[in-house]
Amino acid sequence: MTTSPGAALVAMRAANPLVQCITNYVAMNVAANTLLAAGASPAMIHAAEESGEFAAIAGALTVNIGTVSPAWVEGMVGAIDGALAAGRPWVLDPVAASATTYRRAVTGRLIDLAPTVVRGNASEILALAGGGGGRGVDATDSVAAAEAGARALAAERGCVVAATGAVDFVTDGVRAVRIAGGSPLMPRVTALGCALTCLVGAFAATVPDPFDATVAALTTFAAAGELAAQDADGPGSFGWRFLDALAALGAKAVDTSVLVTPA
Amino acid sequence: MTTSPGAALVAMRAANPLVQCITNYVAMNVAANTLLAAGASPAMIHAAEESGEFAAIAGALTVNIGTVSPAWVEGMVGAIDGALAAGRPWVLDPVAASATTYRRAVTGRLIDLAPTVVRGNASEILALAGGGGGRGVDATDSVAAAEAGARALAAERGCVVAATGAVDFVTDGVRAVRIAGGSPLMPRVTALGCALTCLVGAFAATVPDPFDATVAALTTFAAAGELAAQDADGPGSFGWRFLDALAALGAKAVDTSVLVTPA
Amino acid sequence: MTTSPGAALVAMRAANPLVQCITNYVAMNVAANTLLAAGASPAMIHAAEESGEFAAIAGALTVNIGTVSPAWVEGMVGAIDGALAAGRPWVLDPVAASATTYRRAVTGRLIDLAPTVVRGNASEILALAGGGGGRGVDATDSVAAAEAGARALAAERGCVVAATGAVDFVTDGVRAVRIAGGSPLMPRVTALGCALTCLVGAFAATVPDPFDATVAALTTFAAAGELAAQDADGPGSFGWRFLDALAALGAKAVDTSVLVTPA
Repeated sequence: MTTSPGAALVAMRAANPLVQCITNYVAMNVAANTLLAAGASPAMIHAAEESGEFAAIAGALTVNIGTVSPAWVEGMVGAIDGALAAGRPWVLDPVAASATTYRRAVTGRLIDLAPTVVRGNASEILALAGGGGGRGVDATDSVAAAEAGARALAAERGCVVAATGAVDFVTDGVRAVRIAGGSPLMPRVTALGCALTCLVGAFAATVPDPFDATVAALTTFAAAGELAAQDADGPGSFGWRFLDALAALGAKAVDTSVLVTPA
Repeated sequence: MTTSPGAALVAMRAANPLVQCITNYVAMNVAANTLLAAGASPAMIHAAEESGEFAAIAGALTVNIGTVSPAWVEGMVGAIDGALAAGRPWVLDPVAASATTYRRAVTGRLIDLAPTVVRGNASEILALAGGGGGRGVDATDSVAAAEAGARALAAERGCVVAATGAVDFVTDGVRAVRIAGGSPLMPRVTALGCALTCLVGAFAATVPDPFDATVAALTTFAAAGELAAQDADGPGSFGWRFLDALAALGAKAVDTSVLVTPA
Repeated sequence: MTTSPGAALVAMRAANPLVQCITNYVAMNVAANTLLAAGASPAMIHAAEESGEFAAIAGALTVNIGTVSPAWVEGMVGAIDGALAAGRPWVLDPVAASATTYRRAVTGRLIDLAPTVVRGNASEILALAGGGGGRGVDATDSVAAAEAGARALAAERGCVVAATGAVDFVTDGVRAVRIAGGSPLMPRVTALGCALTCLVGAFAATVPDPFDATVAALTTFAAAGELAAQDADGPGSFGWRFLDALAALGAKAVDTSVLVTPA
């Protein structure tokens, strides 16, 4: 990496990027609070009537299909078209990608629109790579089992792919790293993965290399998770401690508390 | 009851049931966090394009009309049809059932689709039993005043009916219990009742008898509320302490801290 | 003012007004919790099929365009028509009013429906007053720079206008005050401004003079913010401490901790 995750966090905060987050109903509040705590500025504008126009104003776009419906797909596609036309990065979060026929069709339509980054759990990445997928929104596969699929997907699509879990895996098809950190409480709080996707958008808006941006976002997130877990008594206290940690986190803590290793 | 609520909680956690929750926008996040803290796996998939297909994958379905609109009704009906075809239990939460003409029509349509369990506040249960109803989403009647209506509704519809409040009442038309526990802070936190409906779904997915499942869910919820209230300074701190309590709660605490009495 | 903010809070709690809040997906949960903590009763009923009928039942209506789409505009207009016909006050929150062509059109349509109060950040108020506007949902102008625009807008539309920020400005075109209080953590928590709009609705439902009602709501909010900030370690802990503070707040604390000065 040319930029350390900690340095990328400092640069992101200084830029305070406006990030358009089209995400699911469960995630909206926690995703917005995650971006605000980290130092970015979220906007959840989604309707097809304005999503494309707004994408040109924002620094990056994130699209999450968790509670998708036809009207929202039109808003997503409009926003993606706007982002592509304006040269903005966009991040795809293919929640429960293979759970239903409809979801597979939506995911297939969106992946063809050249995402800059795809972030999902292991089962979702495997589903996109043509190798299976889980029953619901939670991963039933390990990240280790999704590494080959992630590499293949990144190479085929020319994008960065991040499979996140206890140890994250990030690749652009050539480079690859594993990121070890975070806390077992993180999957016990709903929509933290969705919030992470929005944070990847914030970094992608400010760090030129999408691979570095993704690694920086995941490392920052894992560092905040470790800090929050120190005093958390369960998923409820972890939730607000995570936001406090994200807001308090310095560059040095990011670069020293989470292990990023070439893969 | 053939199963103690505490034993049912242990069984539910071991099964980690996937619960499809079609709920309102206010409740989505807290409902998902409630299920995760308790040990279930929530999925908020709602669109008519996929809700029925997904209902066959999930272990149970819950339907809440809090912020209902026509497109969502189609998603609800599709999911219910899917759940019924797959033999899955489904739980109805008739929020503000009698507040408007539209809401009465929606409630009437859904109650005709054979819910396994109906959970509401006293005013909502009275509205369904043909005996009145409140002004908004909060109960303006006591649970005691709704007991006869709950019994009649359960007998007429062949389902379990739970009217919840300071003391809950659960009946299948023959059996009936009162559950005394929880905290006065619970109605000061929005959507906890909606979250409870989703938790009833989690228990209904794993406990064969819907009456036992409902009693177990309400008892677990009340026990967590009591635990959370011990150190809460208001509705804000109660909110996250409730999730911590739900995650930490053992079978013994469930079976000893909440009074369940035949009615 | 004929009523002190603290006295207005006591009166509002005693009345426990039902407030219909049509707000954005990000804000729904925190807005409902804010009203419950303060002592009001929220209902998020929004669909055009029932929003107008419900507006006559509620004591006030609030409308927020944060995540607006065409179907929601119809629900908003139906609710506003119902509120006007029933003589209920209604409050407009023009989130990111000038960000897109669509948003400008929606805002223009709603402002023509005679809101009782308009509450926004400085950029949003300037946009409505015909003088600019920011890039996203966050203010890029100071409240001081929006005072003249707020006065002109209030005089032109015959409504109360509140531009909120580090120091709030409230005017009905003739009277005007500045309210200094709150905490720098407040803009770090998403949707607190949207929640404040709903709280203005609660006060407008019970305090006859909309100017006094708006001042009381903003003063109460600022007092709770100051109290919450005393022990908060960041935006996460501020969030729940704010709800605890709002619930615990007495009339005296409201009237002594926040400076309200004629402007």
